[in-house]
Amino acid sequence: MRKTDERLRKQLEFALEIDKEKNILRQTHLSGHGRRENDAEHAWHMSVMAYLLREYSNDEIDVAKVMIMCLIHDIVEIDAGDTYAYDPEGLKTKKDREEKAKERIFSILPDDQKQELTAIFDEFEEGVSAEARFARAMDNLQPLILNDSNGGSDWREHGVWAEQVYARQSGTAAGSDRLYEYTKSVIDRNIEKGSLKVTQK
Amino acid sequence: MRKTDERLRKQLEFALEIDKEKNILRQTHLSGHGRRENDAEHAWHMSVMAYLLREYSNDEIDVAKVMIMCLIHDIVEIDAGDTYAYDPEGLKTKKDREEKAKERIFSILPDDQKQELTAIFDEFEEGVSAEARFARAMDNLQPLILNDSNGGSDWREHGVWAEQVYARQSGTAAGSDRLYEYTKSVIDRNIEKGSLKVTQK
Repeated sequence: MRKTDERLRKQLEFALEIDKEKNILRQTHLSGHGRRENDAEHAWHMSVMAYLLREYSNDEIDVAKVMIMCLIHDIVEIDAGDTYAYDPEGLKTKKDREEKAKERIFSILPDDQKQELTAIFDEFEEGVSAEARFARAMDNLQPLILNDSNGGSDWREHGVWAEQVYARQSGTAAGSDRLYEYTKSVIDRNIEKGSLKVTQK
Repeated sequence: MRKTDERLRKQLEFALEIDKEKNILRQTHLSGHGRRENDAEHAWHMSVMAYLLREYSNDEIDVAKVMIMCLIHDIVEIDAGDTYAYDPEGLKTKKDREEKAKERIFSILPDDQKQELTAIFDEFEEGVSAEARFARAMDNLQPLILNDSNGGSDWREHGVWAEQVYARQSGTAAGSDRLYEYTKSVIDRNIEKGSLKVTQK
């Protein structure tokens, strides 16, 4: 076997492995009160949105890097499952489950690509670089527009508090002030409609 | 309303419109003899594969362009539906249905982005540039590896002939000789197993 055959075999094994992401369901529902969305669909949608909305990034970004970051940011959920952003119990064990998954899944690749994709994955998780901040803004905005199109039904179903949504969505401002401004208008509209719970003042 | 508000409104309307791509089913089944795949999942998978396998492109490519090309290449199917690669009747009307869809869907965007995305879409369809040839190789390879992992069951189900598969998949060579070499080995294996029909010589 040629060395290049073994390299390609590993790359295609990885390509087949990540097919499983299409079976990992999220809490968000598709527009038109559709079924629950899966991780692959979410990643596709975020990545197209990153390309379309790149002009709103606070800082200059390498949009190719943002796109691949969006495409792979949930790969660990093949093993670790999706943890709902407003599930405090699940969030406690998330880091540990995802670290194990990261090692197993990226190790299918040739070593140089294992390093490369792990670095991109970690950069997203750390959320410090301009690209990671914008990708994370997409990770917030994509389910927001779906949920808003469904009248906030995902929040209603889980009895989510406005403060919880603000705590998570405020991260969008680090990637894009303009998109965070839009986000706030969506949250406020959903508070008015009663889709988000608020503490009585 | 600020001018920027109207621009963002159009961009987000487009982002919501393309959510419908998640409901367009293809003939390919997910690995593990899973359900049928949808267009958004297929586009996500192709785009990750383009990034991973870029070293096999015959010519130098701008991988960001290949990725966005992969991500949007099926958007017209929101209106036009998926046409199976081995359906001669459907293929006759495909071009006309897809032209109308292209005009409607990309017109949701601000005009500059309508032009930009239409150009990327057309470049893929024409299949002439290095980026388009590599993206089209991914459009062939992605369902091939899924179908092969399922023992060629998509071909069996439709009674597909080896010549039909060769006619389509031979396009992969224009993007990547190495990946076409792999493709041929998959087709030959599936002929041996009886998953593809061949004319008796």
